[in-house]
Amino acid sequence: MKILVVGANGQIGKHLVGLIQDSENHTARAMIRKQEQASYFEQLGAETAVVDLEEGIEDIAKAADGVNAIVFTAGSGPHTGKDKTILIDLDGAVKTIEAAKLAKVKRFIMVSSFDTSREAIQAAPSAFAPYVAAKHYADEWLKATDLDYTIIHPGALTNEDGTGQVEVATEVERGEVPREDVAAVIFGSLDNNTTIGKEFQVVSGTSPLNEAVKSI
Amino acid sequence: MKILVVGANGQIGKHLVGLIQDSENHTARAMIRKQEQASYFEQLGAETAVVDLEEGIEDIAKAADGVNAIVFTAGSGPHTGKDKTILIDLDGAVKTIEAAKLAKVKRFIMVSSFDTSREAIQAAPSAFAPYVAAKHYADEWLKATDLDYTIIHPGALTNEDGTGQVEVATEVERGEVPREDVAAVIFGSLDNNTTIGKEFQVVSGTSPLNEAVKSI
Repeated sequence: MKILVVGANGQIGKHLVGLIQDSENHTARAMIRKQEQASYFEQLGAETAVVDLEEGIEDIAKAADGVNAIVFTAGSGPHTGKDKTILIDLDGAVKTIEAAKLAKVKRFIMVSSFDTSREAIQAAPSAFAPYVAAKHYADEWLKATDLDYTIIHPGALTNEDGTGQVEVATEVERGEVPREDVAAVIFGSLDNNTTIGKEFQVVSGTSPLNEAVKSI
Repeated sequence: MKILVVGANGQIGKHLVGLIQDSENHTARAMIRKQEQASYFEQLGAETAVVDLEEGIEDIAKAADGVNAIVFTAGSGPHTGKDKTILIDLDGAVKTIEAAKLAKVKRFIMVSSFDTSREAIQAAPSAFAPYVAAKHYADEWLKATDLDYTIIHPGALTNEDGTGQVEVATEVERGEVPREDVAAVIFGSLDNNTTIGKEFQVVSGTSPLNEAVKSI
């Protein structure tokens, strides 16, 4: 499978491209915002496509030409300007979804936020609520398509080394999870069609990661 | 008809409540954010409901209890913090739409922005793009419902006195329009069921306002 990783230059994205390039059956195309980010991915043997998520659907669709799956792991993050929250976390995600349709790529994995429900928007501290709302609408948009989607809701992200031990379910208790393990869950989801049409939360836990993903 | 005006304390909202209260067949309920805004509307003989659009769907639905139509003319405006753009212009609008369903109010009039198309988001100056995107998603949400909606896309709003002369069509040339005339177009749409399921732009022009609305 060839996989377009949107937001490849983020920390989860970098872990994921590494996993894909280390695998036997898959290759990655890293979608990045700036040409100077390309060399990192070229050294891993991955393809690159330079597209800013503020560009149009057609530009993203061109980057997706010929791939078998798209992973959206771009994020302005909860601490960037709120203009980027709506233009990247919501509109960038929706444009990527529309680009998937245009490029006829059925498989789509969305890296979301831990809880993007209506209740979570209402309960969020005011500085965080816009981010939760943006992710909510992006997830809703994806679920309304007929793409083969998987929505992954990670807990609080850390930069610890991955442990390969997670807890994965529709609802789990709030907790932390290393970005490296999130990347491995994405990778595992690409290989497990049982995750299609599903969304689940993931935090650090006690189940071996690959078995946990298969159990979804 | 009893009409819930969401965003009543805005300039268009105040004009609209005035028109409704001056009419023979309609009465207004002004939804406002703060109790101290109530006296203005009470002096016009209108009911009031104090609800902040950052509250939940149920709170808005309570304000809509027993009304026959809802007008959404709240807006953080293009110059507020971008957190409010997503929480009010997008999420506040969507919650009001969901509240309409919950309160079984079929008629819904949305005051949108002049052009909320995908192309308009892409073409907007970066400071304005988040606002256009927020209005885009709110409009899309409304169009996907089975509410009896009308979406009004006014040109550049001014505080000039209304002239009662407008141009109204799916697409008109970009131009200005007094807020007072926009309020009159909303009022006219409430009385004209031919506007149901339609969206149109409005700028100052040469057609008498009521005839223009009837021609939609």
